[in-house]
Order: sequence, then C-alpha cells, then structure tokens
Amino acid sequence: MQRRRFGIIKPEIRVLGVDDGIFTPHVESCVPVVGVVFRGGYWLDGVMHTEILVDGFEATEKISTMIKASPHYKQLRIIMLNGITFGGFNVVDIQTLNQLTGLPVIAVTREKPDLPRIRKALKHLPGDEVRWKAILNAGEVFEIETRQKPEKIYLHATGVSLIDAEKIVRLTSTRSNIPEALRVAHLIASGISHL
Amino acid sequence: MQRRRFGIIKPEIRVLGVDDGIFTPHVESCVPVVGVVFRGGYWLDGVMHTEILVDGFEATEKISTMIKASPHYKQLRIIMLNGITFGGFNVVDIQTLNQLTGLPVIAVTREKPDLPRIRKALKHLPGDEVRWKAILNAGEVFEIETRQKPEKIYLHATGVSLIDAEKIVRLTSTRSNIPEALRVAHLIASGISHL
Repeated sequence: MQRRRFGIIKPEIRVLGVDDGIFTPHVESCVPVVGVVFRGGYWLDGVMHTEILVDGFEATEKISTMIKASPHYKQLRIIMLNGITFGGFNVVDIQTLNQLTGLPVIAVTREKPDLPRIRKALKHLPGDEVRWKAILNAGEVFEIETRQKPEKIYLHATGVSLIDAEKIVRLTSTRSNIPEALRVAHLIASGISHL
Repeated sequence: MQRRRFGIIKPEIRVLGVDDGIFTPHVESCVPVVGVVFRGGYWLDGVMHTEILVDGFEATEKISTMIKASPHYKQLRIIMLNGITFGGFNVVDIQTLNQLTGLPVIAVTREKPDLPRIRKALKHLPGDEVRWKAILNAGEVFEIETRQKPEKIYLHATGVSLIDAEKIVRLTSTRSNIPEALRVAHLIASGISHL
C-alpha cells in the first residue's frame, strides 16, 4: 500500500470523484465511467471518461489508465469512488488502484455494504471468486459522521489514514452528505448515458 | 419572440449552459452537445446531452428536443449558449430556439464575433445562405462588462432585455468571466469527447 500522509488539508485540495452511468443489468454492453476533478468542494476543474463492460473484470485497469492519461493526474491528491462495484459487478480493487496510480483511494457509499447479499449475487456470475477477492481487498468498512448529523456514510480507504479520509470527505461534502466530486460525477455519468 | 420579464433575479435562478465537444473540423461525424443545469453560479443540478452533425443543420432542433425532454425543463429560466455555432457551422437559430422552448436565449462569447470572416468561411459549405440567415437572426451583438473589469464579453440575446441578460450573466459568472454553467458545460463536453 502506498500511504500518503496529509499534513494540513488545504481547502483547495484536488480530488477526483468517479462514478458509472446508467445501464441495463446483466446485458452485455458498455457503461460510461466519469471522473470529475474538483478543487475541494466548490470548483469543477476537469472531466475525464472511459467505458467499462457491464459485469466485466477490467474496471480497475480502465480507471487507472483514465486517471494516468489525464492532464490533471499530477495535481490529484486522492481518488474517491462511488462504492467499489461499477457497471454491475465489475469490481474495483482499491488496493491495486492505489498501487497503479500512487494515489490514496476512498470508496464512499450512503448505505452500509451488505456483504452476504453481494456474495450471494456473485454466485450467478462467472469468475465470482476473483470478484469476491477484490471486494475483500477493500478491507474494513468504516461508518463516519457527516456534516449533517445524525446521518452517516460508509467508506473503505487505502493509502490514507481513516482520520485524514474523514477530514477530506467532510471538507469536500459542500452540497450534500457525499463529496461534491462524487455527487457531480453521478449527475454527469447519468446525463451522458444512452439507455 | 417570447419575451420573459425578470423582476428580482434570484441567486438560485436555474440556468442551462450548452456547449459542444471536440471534433475534427470538416469531417462527417457526430459531436456531443452537453447541457448543464446550474442553480445560479454555484451548484450543478443536472446534465443532459445530445449529438449533432459536424457542419450539419439540426443543432437548433436537437438542442430544443434535448431541453424539452429533460426533467429540469420546467425549472429552467434561461438558456445560455457558448456562441451560436456548434460542431463547426451547425448554427443555432436563437430566435427559433426561443420559440420552440419558450425560454429566453443568450449566446455568450469571449471574443467579438467576426461576421465578415464567418460569412467568408460559410461560402465553402453547402447551404451557406441558410446558415447565414440563422446567424443574422441572432441580431445585434452587445459588449458587456464582466465582474473583472476591464475584460469584456459579448452576447446575443432573445426573449430577455439586455439589462436582465447582463444581470444574469454577471450573477452566474462566479469562477471566471463567463457563466459557471457554460464553463462547466465546456469541461464536460470536452471530457467526454472521443477523438
């Protein structure tokens, strides 16, 4: 794990929020994945995109390639994902993503991940053990307080301490309970999806 | 012309910014067009998209259809375009767009449109008279002051008084000299373009 230590976290820290678009479950097709660069929680600085296969295995590699090819790569301090499953069960291995990019990775969800339910769903897919291993690689899930108590959100983190991850999430959650980069990545990915 | 009178302009006025993506000039292909809904100059509320032909004739109709199909349509108070030529010389007729949507339309540019140069360039394209007519339909171009004097920007407007158009442009230009919805529409449309 490449761990990054944050001293003082600047309000203008460059963060990337990544989310996928809309797709028909279990149908072989591509789904857009959008990365949004924010300065802290206020200003959108750039947008990148790639495509992944529904229930494929290449999300980690595609997202890493997208980030490293971006002119914003060198300014980025952290990657935030909307959960760890993209395009259905194309699982992002956050440890591998951390190693490939050299950046800390946080996966944020509003609901607590229901691992027994996920494991059961995976049984219907080829390569379920590979997918399950990537999910376990995300490690422990932490419950954290949002600005608007008593609401909680949940996160996996790698390459960054839980305390720093919490600080960054709260600093950048300006409009809602989740970081603005993730809220906007969701709106863009949904808005550009063809159904 | 469907003119809308604005009384007090609310800081959270819902505006749409529309821009096109990156494309190879004069090559028959599609270019993405992105519409971004902002509350005033701060919060992105939604994203919509369509595609138009490079140097085609359907930009006005496609953009109108995109807007009217959006769940945000009824909240929108004004349409802002990044200029009036999209995908090369696929000209948006702002008067027609105003009639089709019932919304005021402003076209904003950083540089003063060079009409003689545009007319000359049009000569190389089929249907140059149709395109030229749409450009003339945009009417007079106005120079307006930005927040950061002495820089100026230029606009065409229909369905709204120049005074209200200026107020809305300045109110929503929070990060740069152009409305935030247009700055962000540009970043998204560029970021999702395939070249």
